Amino acid sequence: MSRPPKLEHAAVEAWLAAHPGWTREGEGAISRTFRFPDFGRALAFTVELGMVAQKRDHHPEVTVGWGRASVVWTTHDAEGLTSLDLALAEATDAIAARASA
Amino acid sequence: MSRPPKLEHAAVEAWLAAHPGWTREGEGAISRTFRFPDFGRALAFTVELGMVAQKRDHHPEVTVGWGRASVVWTTHDAEGLTSLDLALAEATDAIAARASA
Amino acid sequence: MSRPPKLEHAAVEAWLAAHPGWTREGEGAISRTFRFPDFGRALAFTVELGMVAQKRDHHPEVTVGWGRASVVWTTHDAEGLTSLDLALAEATDAIAARASA
Amino acid sequence: MSRPPKLEHAAVEAWLAAHPGWTREGEGAISRTFRFPDFGRALAFTVELGMVAQKRDHHPEVTVGWGRASVVWTTHDAEGLTSLDLALAEATDAIAARASA
Repeated sequence: MSRPPKLEHAAVEAWLAAHPGWTREGEGAISRTFRFPDFGRALAFTVELGMVAQKRDHHPEVTVGWGRASVVWTTHDAEGLTSLDLALAEATDAIAARASA
Repeated sequence: MSRPPKLEHAAVEAWLAAHPGWTREGEGAISRTFRFPDFGRALAFTVELGMVAQKRDHHPEVTVGWGRASVVWTTHDAEGLTSLDLALAEATDAIAARASA
Repeated sequence: MSRPPKLEHAAVEAWLAAHPGWTREGEGAISRTFRFPDFGRALAFTVELGMVAQKRDHHPEVTVGWGRASVVWTTHDAEGLTSLDLALAEATDAIAARASA
Repeated sequence: MSRPPKLEHAAVEAWLAAHPGWTREGEGAISRTFRFPDFGRALAFTVELGMVAQKRDHHPEVTVGWGRASVVWTTHDAEGLTSLDLALAEATDAIAARASA
């Protein structure tokens, strides 16, 4: 699947300013940690995120533990961040908002 | 694990009257169907329900399809419904309310 | 997504003869029940199947219970079975063979 | 739930010598990375591990990505490793062996 091009540094900065909770992991990735009441809620979040990722054929790294999940988005082929990473980070926020409600 | 005793018919009737959406599957089981926007949401619901079931060591039957999941609770050892089934049906409602929000 | 055409009755019969365990659910669907040692194994099978289904944008109905999962494949748009159902039924067998090993 | 006591350093060393692939994460934790053919297989592994963890009421940290999952076991209450961590690490190996077959 063809990928969108790597974003300029300033474009990512603008997105980060508008999406609190997300931070850079080096220059080429972004991450956010979400809190949940227990392991099961964090696991269900991970499965729902996995299904959305599968649909877009673009997958995150997710670290799931008791009451939390951390998500990293990057595009290896682009050696950095693309518009697809940012779109899926926004989808991640929406899933987490429900799962942690 | 010891199980609570089988509930009287009238006790289940009273619970059903207070919990719309749940119906009898014969005398010894109850079921409810939930709607979701897509398969991934229904699957995440099933995983979260499975984790709650595992914690209580009492498991439902779940039928998951595109945009829906149907849950059946019964207690085989009691050949009918117990207070544990009703407690887990209420937990099911809580999980579904978030997952379908 | 465009779907393959509905298969002729004889084509499905030939496939069923070669794939023991699968049976018709009426004229337009096929199903198979798989056994697992516990609920967790059946749930993991369901998640893996869900991810494969998501990749192909074609989803089964799965009934998961203690130590078992039943899978139904059909194509609503074709009002019957297509080659995609049969391909995904074969993928289902492969997932179940590992998950129940 | 009461927890088994923290293991002596030598007891963990003996276990590590017998279980290749597991390494220390500092003094108080152990980790192992498993490889899978894709994201869905790694996710199904994570769900099955989550169900086993839920049954024992002791949960790992799992980092799942494309084609891999890394598992960390530790016991916060004991500020180190206990026999429960080692038992669940062995269960992790068994799940991964099937899921990556």
